[in-house]
Amino acid sequence: MASEENKKQDSALSVQQGVEQPSSVNPALSKGLRKFKKDQFEVMDYVDGILKGDRAILSRAITLVESARPQDQEIARQLINACLPHSGNSLRLGITGVPGAGKSTFIESFGLHLIDKGHKLAVLAIDPSSKRSKGSILGDKTRMEDLSVNPNAFIRPSASAGTLGGVARKTRETVILCEAAGFDLVLIETVGVGQSETTVAQIVDFFLLLQLAGGGDELQGIKRGIMEMADLIVINKADGDNIKKAELSKREYENALHLFPALENGWIPKVLTASAFHSIGLQPIWEHIEEFVRLTQANGHFDGKRQEQSIGILNDTISHALTEGFFYHPELKPLLASYEKQVLNKEISPYEAAQLLLKKYFESLK
Amino acid sequence: MASEENKKQDSALSVQQGVEQPSSVNPALSKGLRKFKKDQFEVMDYVDGILKGDRAILSRAITLVESARPQDQEIARQLINACLPHSGNSLRLGITGVPGAGKSTFIESFGLHLIDKGHKLAVLAIDPSSKRSKGSILGDKTRMEDLSVNPNAFIRPSASAGTLGGVARKTRETVILCEAAGFDLVLIETVGVGQSETTVAQIVDFFLLLQLAGGGDELQGIKRGIMEMADLIVINKADGDNIKKAELSKREYENALHLFPALENGWIPKVLTASAFHSIGLQPIWEHIEEFVRLTQANGHFDGKRQEQSIGILNDTISHALTEGFFYHPELKPLLASYEKQVLNKEISPYEAAQLLLKKYFESLK
Repeated sequence: MASEENKKQDSALSVQQGVEQPSSVNPALSKGLRKFKKDQFEVMDYVDGILKGDRAILSRAITLVESARPQDQEIARQLINACLPHSGNSLRLGITGVPGAGKSTFIESFGLHLIDKGHKLAVLAIDPSSKRSKGSILGDKTRMEDLSVNPNAFIRPSASAGTLGGVARKTRETVILCEAAGFDLVLIETVGVGQSETTVAQIVDFFLLLQLAGGGDELQGIKRGIMEMADLIVINKADGDNIKKAELSKREYENALHLFPALENGWIPKVLTASAFHSIGLQPIWEHIEEFVRLTQANGHFDGKRQEQSIGILNDTISHALTEGFFYHPELKPLLASYEKQVLNKEISPYEAAQLLLKKYFESLK
Repeated sequence: MASEENKKQDSALSVQQGVEQPSSVNPALSKGLRKFKKDQFEVMDYVDGILKGDRAILSRAITLVESARPQDQEIARQLINACLPHSGNSLRLGITGVPGAGKSTFIESFGLHLIDKGHKLAVLAIDPSSKRSKGSILGDKTRMEDLSVNPNAFIRPSASAGTLGGVARKTRETVILCEAAGFDLVLIETVGVGQSETTVAQIVDFFLLLQLAGGGDELQGIKRGIMEMADLIVINKADGDNIKKAELSKREYENALHLFPALENGWIPKVLTASAFHSIGLQPIWEHIEEFVRLTQANGHFDGKRQEQSIGILNDTISHALTEGFFYHPELKPLLASYEKQVLNKEISPYEAAQLLLKKYFESLK
């Protein structure tokens, strides 16, 4: 990942230099440029390259989106706005599962299967833990040897820094860039252990949960609620001696799903078995996904969900910024701590403590 | 409920008059009074009555807590703070289930069973829908004829107005008053159809989900995720021809729960069958609850959860107030609407829209 880091620095630098360059206007950018007259040459380069499907430029653009430098973020903003009208034409698949469920092997063989069917595939990852692990998932591309060298696949390790919200935002903006670059399938991988799934659910159209045969034990790693988010559960490694066990797990999961109420979109989550390693059962998975898309596009829930997601992100970003502004307010921190102590000692009700803290906060903004 | 409304007005009035009255200091209130010198006589009356277990005064105090009048809220604040040190000594049970699961019958016969064992029982309800239905659940006390007239039971219909957050707050403050009044068991009922369960989970120690026999179909009304919140699932109406079906459902639920990971507190959610109407299987339910309390008090999760809840309420109240302040900001509303439109038309990214809206908002606070 070190070289990844350097690449970031380089492009960030080159972008900075770009700022000084002379410029000509690109109609595709007129909206973005109405606000920002500078950087337009640089931005135009990125947009043209992305719309042409230039993978090198796409890669640099994503690095720009992931960059923390203000100048880079400024350009990234214009870039995203310019690509937005060209985005939204892909199917966005979320894939999660505990470590050991075989996510990489699955993504590789499932991805190659879809590419054989004529799709262009981008693979991204949301991995909040990567702040420490430097992009543990997808980071090691050698785990997907064939896919990573396939001309119709684009694999991008997870942003290796930042809060979950930040990583999610970068991932969503990366989806926009990939779609503008002509990828009609975007796979987003998460480790099924954290909050990240809830965040991914705000980005993807369909959520696939990868499980292992053998009943509930393997689920220990899966966070409560994730199973309820799944549109499809795939029991992986259903081969050899494992087939019986896989079929048993399948029935167990079907019974469990049967106890959950139907989804609003009319889709009934399914359970399938597969062996990614032996490329068994991949086509049925894809057909189920296609069936889901047909159903939800017919009843309007497909677009409805995407619109909900956009407004949801607008609202969440605002709420998040507001609460961050409060809880990381330097003057308030000690006060907050002391009120928390009083609340725990039952000296004051949490409601009154909140009221007093809010009063102080809004006074500090005047 | 009309008389209920009038009672509110009356007490609100009497409280107002109380404001003018001369006052003497009550040590129990010293803390509350350090901040508010007025109303102390009125507040002292309430506190003394509550600590004596006077149900009429408790009832008036709750009406005060539920009142929307600023003067009432002022006194309610002092009241809560004065009762806080005397609170926390009860076991707080959440009970939910779809309409038709037999919640009232269950609460009545289970409640009477616990009173027979020497407990003092307060029954409250969180029902955000009650804004329209005027306290549909528990509102009709005749549904609990025997319990409602029992000297060791105190039944309070849900606050019949306000947002979920508001109702939840009032309920939690009512719990404090009930505990100060010596009730060692507080049952909080919710209809298992809305968000309210998540809110109740912030108040209760133990969550009981009441179900009906017959597999998944009855679950249609239960919101996703509620089953995962349950510490105990009770299949009700397990009598007569229903017993077989109930046992089958029991196994189905056990299989489903088996797929969920263990809870942090070490408790493994159980499934029991019962017939509230015939008072069958009530003692085993209570023994499971006692087992839960023993376990979680031994491993520290019981107190830990309560502390988390208090801090959680502090934080949620703050976050809620901050977002409300933004999203109901009169000047911003039209701007927010137009940005939402732009986001849906993919003219601007939700992130940039959020950024621009936040800028406007903080400028307006200066």
